[in-house]
Order: sequence, then C-alpha cells, then structure tokens
Amino acid sequence: MTRNRFTVAGGGPVGALLAILLGRHGYEVGLYEGRPDSRETSIYQGRSINIALSDRGWTSLEQIGISSDTKADAIPMYHRAIHGIGGEYSRLPYGREGDAIWSVSRGGINEQLLDIADEEPNVQTHFQHRLTDVDFDTARAMFQVKDDHEVAVAADYLFGADGAHSKVRRLAHNFPRFSYSQTCMPQSYIELNIPANPDGSHRLERNALHIWPRKHFMLIALPNPDGTFTCTLFLNHSGDPSFEALTERGDVDRFFNENFADALEHLENPVETFLEKTASPLYLVQVFPWSFNRKVGLIGDAAHAIVPFYGQGMNCGFEDCAELNRLIDQHGHDWDEIFPAYENARKPNGDAIAELSMRNFVEMSDLSGDPMFQLRKMIEAKFSRRFPDLWTPLYSLVTFTPEIPYSEALRIGDEQNRVMDKIMALPNIVDDWDEQHVMDRLLELATDTLGDGK
Amino acid sequence: MTRNRFTVAGGGPVGALLAILLGRHGYEVGLYEGRPDSRETSIYQGRSINIALSDRGWTSLEQIGISSDTKADAIPMYHRAIHGIGGEYSRLPYGREGDAIWSVSRGGINEQLLDIADEEPNVQTHFQHRLTDVDFDTARAMFQVKDDHEVAVAADYLFGADGAHSKVRRLAHNFPRFSYSQTCMPQSYIELNIPANPDGSHRLERNALHIWPRKHFMLIALPNPDGTFTCTLFLNHSGDPSFEALTERGDVDRFFNENFADALEHLENPVETFLEKTASPLYLVQVFPWSFNRKVGLIGDAAHAIVPFYGQGMNCGFEDCAELNRLIDQHGHDWDEIFPAYENARKPNGDAIAELSMRNFVEMSDLSGDPMFQLRKMIEAKFSRRFPDLWTPLYSLVTFTPEIPYSEALRIGDEQNRVMDKIMALPNIVDDWDEQHVMDRLLELATDTLGDGK
Repeated sequence: MTRNRFTVAGGGPVGALLAILLGRHGYEVGLYEGRPDSRETSIYQGRSINIALSDRGWTSLEQIGISSDTKADAIPMYHRAIHGIGGEYSRLPYGREGDAIWSVSRGGINEQLLDIADEEPNVQTHFQHRLTDVDFDTARAMFQVKDDHEVAVAADYLFGADGAHSKVRRLAHNFPRFSYSQTCMPQSYIELNIPANPDGSHRLERNALHIWPRKHFMLIALPNPDGTFTCTLFLNHSGDPSFEALTERGDVDRFFNENFADALEHLENPVETFLEKTASPLYLVQVFPWSFNRKVGLIGDAAHAIVPFYGQGMNCGFEDCAELNRLIDQHGHDWDEIFPAYENARKPNGDAIAELSMRNFVEMSDLSGDPMFQLRKMIEAKFSRRFPDLWTPLYSLVTFTPEIPYSEALRIGDEQNRVMDKIMALPNIVDDWDEQHVMDRLLELATDTLGDGK
Repeated sequence: MTRNRFTVAGGGPVGALLAILLGRHGYEVGLYEGRPDSRETSIYQGRSINIALSDRGWTSLEQIGISSDTKADAIPMYHRAIHGIGGEYSRLPYGREGDAIWSVSRGGINEQLLDIADEEPNVQTHFQHRLTDVDFDTARAMFQVKDDHEVAVAADYLFGADGAHSKVRRLAHNFPRFSYSQTCMPQSYIELNIPANPDGSHRLERNALHIWPRKHFMLIALPNPDGTFTCTLFLNHSGDPSFEALTERGDVDRFFNENFADALEHLENPVETFLEKTASPLYLVQVFPWSFNRKVGLIGDAAHAIVPFYGQGMNCGFEDCAELNRLIDQHGHDWDEIFPAYENARKPNGDAIAELSMRNFVEMSDLSGDPMFQLRKMIEAKFSRRFPDLWTPLYSLVTFTPEIPYSEALRIGDEQNRVMDKIMALPNIVDDWDEQHVMDRLLELATDTLGDGK
C-alpha cells in the first residue's frame, strides 16, 4: 500500500522524532531544516546548551526505543541545590526516592534523533532548506536552499515543527478564524558558563539543578557531561534591578557580588558576558487552531512556545508526537479525523503547561523567600508523605506522572491550592503546623475535594 | 513657534478626531486614508451602517464642539425592545429617566469629522493613500497612491488610527518585546435590513435598540434616520445552529421562522441574504505597547479591537483621543512623556472594555432566558432605585458615567457581582426576593464592600 507524503518543516528534536514516527507508519517523509547539519559542521562545538528532560519526554521517546538507560550522556538531577544569598546551601528533592529530571544536551539528543531518522528508509533529511512559503490548501511548500535557489516541495500533508519562531505559524496568520497570542514576559535571560575542574570533574554538585533564587530574579545551573555547567540568569528587562538598568561595569560587578557571591568563584567572566551579551526575551505563544484545512499542522514549540520555568518545553513537544502516533493508529490513517483529534487533545495540555510554567517562576525564584510559602510547602510535603495515594504534589504530577495530562495536573493543583488556602487560614497555623489536628483537617478537606485519589 | 509634524494613518472617525485635536494644538497634521473620500464618491450610498454612541463618545466630541444637541441625525435609544420567541414584546430601560444610547450613522459622523478636519488650517487630508510601510525610528511612512505610485511622508510622529486590521500594528509585530493577541470569537455576524414604511416612518419602535435574544445567538436592530433599521444577526460560526450548518434554503427558512417570526414580516430578504453573504468573523485584538520609540503610536481599534456587544468601540477610541488631548497640555507637548503616559492610562481601560464587551454577549443574548438571571437583575435594579448613591448598575457605569474609567467600572462590577452572589445564595431567595430582609442584607453587604459610594 502506498502511503501519503509528509513534509516536516524543522529538524529540531520534535521535528526529527515526528519524522521517525511518521516514517515507521509507512509515510514518505521529507524532513527540512534551515540550518546546516550540526553533525557535519559541529555548529554546537564549544557550546553546551542543555535542556531538562523528564518522564513525559522519556515515555514518548520509548516509542522509538530510546530510554534514559540508553542515553549515556543524560545526567539525572535528583534535587534542587539551593544557594542562599549568604552562601547557605540546601537540597530540596524533586520527588520521591529515585525521581529525577535529566539534564541532556539539546544538540546531543537532536543528533541522536537525526541519526535514527537517517536510518529510516522512508525518511529523507534535507539541511540548509529554509522554509519561505506554504500553500495551506495543498501542503505544497517552498524552501530556499543555501540562500541560493528556491525549490517547491509537494506533499499530501505538512507539519510545522519549526520552533518558537515558527514560519509555518507566521504564514498561518492570514488563515480565517486564526487566534494568536504572543506575550513578552517581564524577564529576559543570558547564558553563562561554569567551566570544569582541570580533571574534568564538576565544580558544583553534579546530580542537582542549582538555583540561586533571589525572588524577582534567579540564576540556575544545569550540569553537562563534560564537567561544565550551563547557567541561565533570568532578570527583568526593565526596572530595578534589570538588564536595562545594569549597564555600568561597577554596577554589574556589585550586582553579582551582592547576589551570587558563591557562584562568582566558578562563573567564567560573568560580568564581561553580562555587559557584552544582549539579553534574550522570553515569549509565550498560544494559537488555535493547530491545523489548517486538514492539510497542515503545527507541533511542539511552533504550536505552543512556553517559558522555561518548568523544564517541560521539549517534553510537551515529544508528547505531541506520541499523541499523534497514537491517533494515527486509532483513526486508521484518516487525517480528516487525526488533525482535529490531535489539536483537541493537545491544545488544553499546551495551555495548561503554559500556565503552569509561568506560575513556576515564583516557585523557583522564591524558594528561599517567603516563610509562609515555605511553611505551606512543608505541611503539604508532610501530608503527601503520610498519604501518598491522596496527595501527589503538583510538581510530581507534572514531572513524574506522564499518565496524567498537564490539564488534569493543573486542575488537581488548583484544588490542592484551595485546600491549602484553608489550612493556612487556620488560627495559629505558624505555631500549630506540626500538630495532629492540622493533619486531621487536611485529611478531611483532601478526602472531600480530592476523593479521586489524586 | 513651529510645532512638529504628525502623520495620522487612517481617516475613520478616530483618525479624523485625532487629526482635528492635534491640528488645534498647532501641529502640522497629514491625515491619510486608503479609501476614496466618501463625501465625493458616496461609497456609503444605499448602505446604512450605524453605530452606538454614548456619553463617553459625546463627552470626547464636546472637546471639538460636537454634542448630541448639534447632531440632528443621531437617534436616542432609551430602552432595549425585547422580542421574545413567541412574539412577546417588552422594554428594559438602559438607565434612569432620559438616559439614552444613540444610534448614529458611522458614515455620517465620519464625514462630519472630516469636514471639520478640512476646516482646520493645520490639517491636510489625503485619500486613496494606502499605508505600506512605517519606519519606527523616524516615523517616516510610505503610502501607495491610487494603487499607482508610492510616496514617502516624513513626520516627527505617526499615529496608527487605521482600525481593527491596522497595518501600523501589523508592522509593529517585529518590534522588540511586542505582545500581541488576536482571538477569534465563536460568533460571526451578517447584516440585514428592515426597510422604512412607504411614508418614511419606522416599522418598529423608533427610539429603542431591538433585540431578539435567543441565548446562543441573537438578532439586533438599530434605527436609522431614513426610517430603516440596520440589523445584525450574531450566530456561532460552527455547531448547531451556526452559519456553517445552515446552508440549505429550507433550513435557513425554518431557522428564521422558528426564531424570528415577528421580525420576518419586516426583514428584507433575510433568507436570501443569509445564503448569499459570507458571515464576518469577530476578533478581539489586544497589544502592548501602544507606542514605539516615542515616535509611533496606536489609537482606537488599532490599539484595541473589541467585540461590539457593549456598543463601546467608537466611544473608547474617542476617549483615547480625549486622553491624549489632555496629556498634551499636561506634559507641555513633551512626547517623550506623552506616549508612555498615554499608553499607561489607556491600556487598562482598553483591556477592561474588551473584557466587559465579551461578557455582555451573555447579558444581551440571554435577556429573556435564565429566570435566576432575571431575578438577580430585578433585585439589583430595585436596590439601585432605592439607594442610587450606593449602587450604580454596571451598564450605567460603563455607558452613562464617563467620569469613571472602564477599568474602575469593571472593578466595581466585579464587587457588585460578589455581593449579588451572596444575595442569590440566600435560602428561599426565589420566594423572598421582594422581602425587606433581602434589601437589608444587600444594604449591609453593599455598605461593607462598596463603601466608596459606587
């Protein structure tokens, strides 16, 4: 049987995974990437961009035989390593014993997926093909090859897996009844680097995600297999302090000394880097529909660019692919059914993780801040340990419970919040929090509102 | 003293009012409109598009000497005329005695404003000049003249008053840190017509806004001075019933007969019009910032395209102009101050009327529906009549109270809602609603939460 032809625009991790899955379903797939092939040109050399991968990502990758066991250069991070402003150091586990999120090299996972795609007989990869136009009626696309000539690529269907700045999505702006939202966040970011020790070991604790939470801004560091850490400084674009306000060397120097003293001895030229680099903005992008004329679809960041504060961006994109994979079987390759089923299934989850990710900036950046917030988390953790079947913390629902969709995790988290609001409103909660009657009341409230076991 | 030059892109009512105000401040203003001059080509002939104008609009227009008294062809509408599905007819006043919203001809008010603009020595109007590009650093703009040649127009500042589909706003998409949201509503609409009687009189009550509320869809009719009514049918794009579903003559005929029997005898070829016309989508557009480099600004629908369910679109645009007019004086023509002051003052109000307008679809389309909703309105109205200083209904705050900004009206309305939620939760409220103890409780709650007198 002859299967249809697919064009996948965008050869990042999501595009590559999608191409593999489509190829294995027997479709003839052309995977087109605007940049050169990183496996030949080593464009990532000297630059470690890592990314968080957790259970949702791994579960999706298992469909093509990749698991955390077979991914040697993924580093499990079992806890947050929290650096207080006075140099205090503490650990906050991500979940239960053995639960971890993983620091993986974005380039590494991308190249691994591209290698697998190249082994698929039905998948052809094309680099330095920059998408310039899409016909939403026919799925025909135009690509500019090496900034030289243009080629037209005919296909039965096209997916835009071309990331947060998706060209396919931009072209869809003129599609009737298209809804689009792009929100610029107050925070921007720059990347910094912590080099390895001379013996190649890590200068900070290896199996942790390091956070310097400073309420309205924060520094984080994720470990790389080569002993380095990739750090990200999230700071407001304007106001005080901000990227806009900190332009003098003396001020930047003071900013780092006052806020990140214990990181300063490790960071590679942070002040120079801060002064030289232009901070990148963070955008939230939400659109609907995710498909057009049952011919063209959006997937991954092209459909839902979120902020990075939950470490779920790539996980969500991989889940999109896994859902599509499932729907192809369920609807027997009928794309008139698959496109609407796909967008209706995934849109609420894309919206939910977008919302959760924005909220998580506060959780991350205020970890050592508001004592009432800390108390609330302590009470919740105690209850969850005692009644694990009745209360899974929201972070674990999002990160370690792939069988629960993001949208359901958000709903449960909101119910937990309402319960905890009532607990925190109990008289004398600050003194009584460890008393039995608080646990009793929480059990009562949780049984009432969260009776479904989550 | 030589004043700066302004380009105003868009010669609709808002652009024309802005040009007049700027001209009277001594600026040299070029007003550019893409379409031909309606005063010469009578492009509006045979087509009455009316629009609701209320106190905010009139208050703003008074700054250039236009008032409801001098506007002979504006028709005051004192109440909603509600047409039940069985032909029942009832009236619901918009406010207190004498309060009215006004049906004005969009073309008429536009031409009146253009006439005034042409009398201003500092204002030059240009038609058939279609904006093609803006330099956001220099405020220089390119216009295509009569689809023929292009001209470059230099200026010190530029305002995009070019409506819901603003080209200036589209060009701003690439401006750094621009946030943009375009949301397609479930409802689309078509316009229908009710002709005048042979003697030129109105076939329905003249001084009323007619509504056929059918919960998920509705028909409305606004009177024109020539005896006709311009009607708008708001109906979902898809689902049942919807524009998408109703494509057969028999079905459309049945739809009108079942839902608008008493309008059918007046409407001019509604079934044919329904079948022939393509329904127009409704979009909500929200952006920020509204100004770029202290050189280019957005105003009116270009800055905030809202849905028409509160009849506030043009009023809000006129208020933008009035605010700008005030700020020019306040900041002594310092546009480095005026632009940020303008967008910070008006953005919360644009957002508030956007939210209020969306919510008002339910109010309008469910007027004869949910009895609990009706009871709630009845209790509120009774209380407001008894304690007018303590409770101004939200509709009146928005429509008849221009001294209260939209954002404040929204806040007060939400507080009123919380109070009414408590009243409606009283035991036996359906039986007891007219009892003294309900008014007493409402007085108590209103005094507590709305103590500021509104």
